[in-house]
Amino acid sequence: MALKLYGSPMSTCTSRVLTCLHEKGLDFEFVPVDLFAGEHKQPPFLAKNPFGQIPALEDDDLTIFESRAITSYVAEKFKETGYDLIRHQNLKEAALVKVWTEVESQRFHPAIAPIVFQFFVAPLQGILPDQTVIDTSLEKLGKVLDIYEAKLTSTKYLAGDFYSLADLHHLPYTYYLMKTPAASVVNERPHVKAWWEDISSRPAFKKVAEGMNFGEK
Amino acid sequence: MALKLYGSPMSTCTSRVLTCLHEKGLDFEFVPVDLFAGEHKQPPFLAKNPFGQIPALEDDDLTIFESRAITSYVAEKFKETGYDLIRHQNLKEAALVKVWTEVESQRFHPAIAPIVFQFFVAPLQGILPDQTVIDTSLEKLGKVLDIYEAKLTSTKYLAGDFYSLADLHHLPYTYYLMKTPAASVVNERPHVKAWWEDISSRPAFKKVAEGMNFGEK
Repeated sequence: MALKLYGSPMSTCTSRVLTCLHEKGLDFEFVPVDLFAGEHKQPPFLAKNPFGQIPALEDDDLTIFESRAITSYVAEKFKETGYDLIRHQNLKEAALVKVWTEVESQRFHPAIAPIVFQFFVAPLQGILPDQTVIDTSLEKLGKVLDIYEAKLTSTKYLAGDFYSLADLHHLPYTYYLMKTPAASVVNERPHVKAWWEDISSRPAFKKVAEGMNFGEK
Repeated sequence: MALKLYGSPMSTCTSRVLTCLHEKGLDFEFVPVDLFAGEHKQPPFLAKNPFGQIPALEDDDLTIFESRAITSYVAEKFKETGYDLIRHQNLKEAALVKVWTEVESQRFHPAIAPIVFQFFVAPLQGILPDQTVIDTSLEKLGKVLDIYEAKLTSTKYLAGDFYSLADLHHLPYTYYLMKTPAASVVNERPHVKAWWEDISSRPAFKKVAEGMNFGEK
């Protein structure tokens, strides 16, 4: 075993990978990267990820970055270990996992990320959250979640009646969103709310959420 | 054979999938969706993709959407056919394909998409391209391409010395960008320029590019 994850427990993208590692029940070494000291912009970390963003994963002599690429690699390499996040024995289910994983990446993420940024990062920079950005993004997010609401009336999870990487990828940003007044965008949609309560109560994520205290210190 | 692709030849996301299908040498039926008539927002197409965006792929009784999910599905299902886009026989190379596929999705795409939108879509809506948006996005894109330039000095393609899905995903937006004054962002970086000339001259893409005449009619 030589999995080594570089990141910060409070970071959304690190949390995404941590949740995946816990779902797979894998042993790994966690190496904290000090964001406030700018460690991710220094040469040793830039050698792991030239874009200077956490997390990065080392697996023996392989180094990879981008949280969604890491989870996909881990879910594939260790497909026979722990919970199967990619439905590797069923080509059609696996295809739907890919579809809804892309929906998170292309539709959900661009809508939710600016909201979480305004509520959690802007204050750290000494500026007030920009209400116009929040409102515009919330409207966009609401439209995405309307489609989730319709989908979740017919299947329990996004890709089907099974929890998968597609659901998992939503956890970190939604977790921070739920700490803000914008949580109503989830709570107002009963099936989305039930889905959120279900996926966020899985032991793998509950363990990770303990470290997700960004903006609270 | 029952692959059926719904889309428009001039659309970037449709082109992404078309290029993949040609690289794999697959037979498929192409079903045009009339964007100008709003066909993608009507119930028959919404049943294929609730987000109302092209393309969508049918493979017998399976319907999937999101261009990057479709290419990934096709590259995986037909891994033994045509050109191997995902390096399925080498776990490490496959991991690096995932990484750089995510880089396109999370870093390159958000920077280039607004530029292409301003040059090609805004005029159709009767508005002048917004130079501020173009300048901001070009600066962002330049920073991403600085990292590509460094990477491409050590490997011929993004994920390594082999063409892969990671390169392919860049084709459609870059193709439209190269028709604008913003092409300089590529041309000023010699390794990026050589990479672009290489990947855009592959027969699979050249065939697809013939239909990419958005804004020219």
